[in-house]
Amino acid sequence: MGERGILIVVSGFSGAGKGTVMKEMMRRYDNYALSISATTRKPRPGEEDGREYFFKTVEEFEKMIAKDELIEYARYVDNYYGTPKSYVQEQLDAGKDVILEIEIQGALKVKEKFPDTLLLFVTPPTSGELRRRLEGRGTETADVIDSRMKRAKDEAEGMDRYDYLIVNDVLEECVGLVHQIIQGEHRRSYRNVAFIERMKEELKGE
Amino acid sequence: MGERGILIVVSGFSGAGKGTVMKEMMRRYDNYALSISATTRKPRPGEEDGREYFFKTVEEFEKMIAKDELIEYARYVDNYYGTPKSYVQEQLDAGKDVILEIEIQGALKVKEKFPDTLLLFVTPPTSGELRRRLEGRGTETADVIDSRMKRAKDEAEGMDRYDYLIVNDVLEECVGLVHQIIQGEHRRSYRNVAFIERMKEELKGE
Repeated sequence: MGERGILIVVSGFSGAGKGTVMKEMMRRYDNYALSISATTRKPRPGEEDGREYFFKTVEEFEKMIAKDELIEYARYVDNYYGTPKSYVQEQLDAGKDVILEIEIQGALKVKEKFPDTLLLFVTPPTSGELRRRLEGRGTETADVIDSRMKRAKDEAEGMDRYDYLIVNDVLEECVGLVHQIIQGEHRRSYRNVAFIERMKEELKGE
Repeated sequence: MGERGILIVVSGFSGAGKGTVMKEMMRRYDNYALSISATTRKPRPGEEDGREYFFKTVEEFEKMIAKDELIEYARYVDNYYGTPKSYVQEQLDAGKDVILEIEIQGALKVKEKFPDTLLLFVTPPTSGELRRRLEGRGTETADVIDSRMKRAKDEAEGMDRYDYLIVNDVLEECVGLVHQIIQGEHRRSYRNVAFIERMKEELKGE
């Protein structure tokens, strides 16, 4: 059952801890693959093509857009960021569940194109806790924190468009829960059409 | 989150082992309640009103139908069987996930009335295994086994109407999986409207 992987989009408030959850998922279980984005921004020291990002020229990137080779893409400041289809398809075909970490606009676009996509939204238990986590980083100015909180307010409007709500309170529990949810999703009837058809055929022959 | 219980309908082929799975669920976890059916059939020795069944007269049962006090009901041979609303509601309100073990027609009726109902279908991995289990009981005649297999063929036509497909191969794993699926379902966005609304309100006040 469920030989093919599931495409999973993870979004969440900045400060919800989704990066940490994903990192821990990859460390703990071996059936997940993190999608690697393509970007036109320059590699930073230590970054490797095909590991952090697929680094592309603007021309290459726009060719990918034209050839419909991206699941979704967006332009931030002066750079393109997008999700190459080929890598995701390869991993799904190999039976891996592929995790995409993107924001809500991209998430909804992906779901529209691929309705079987699983949308997960990671949130801290309260908005107070969100602020505490942002402040706790100690690297952000008050202005940056305020603008993140304002953005969270906007993003919250889209929470109910996600399939599952992941409250990240205790990291260990949260990671286990996300894993359980994905494993459970593999048992959805509509993801097991081949099994159902085989069973029907077998029973007809009985 | 998920303070209210979920109504769960479990169906499956006769011989799939759903009774055993349910019994083990009740033994292992304490957040589930098995729904108790009402019936007009006479209690058998050792059966207790309110434990195996709620025993009713035909008049009482028909009054329950008239007053819409049953989630679903059916007539087998000369007896009524049905699921009283009040008991299920009480358990759901108390935060218990309530499990109903009924066949496919009833399952679809319940889902129609209560769209939040979770429909689980329990099946052995193959039809050959189904036959082996029925034969392995050693209590059924060849005719009874054949009629069960024929019924399974009809029931298989409805498998894809269920939310999840539970392949009961190794009992222990199957029980854990059903538990995980139900726990995961508690995190569905549409089951957490109150949490989402609270979060939106809090973020507006930030």
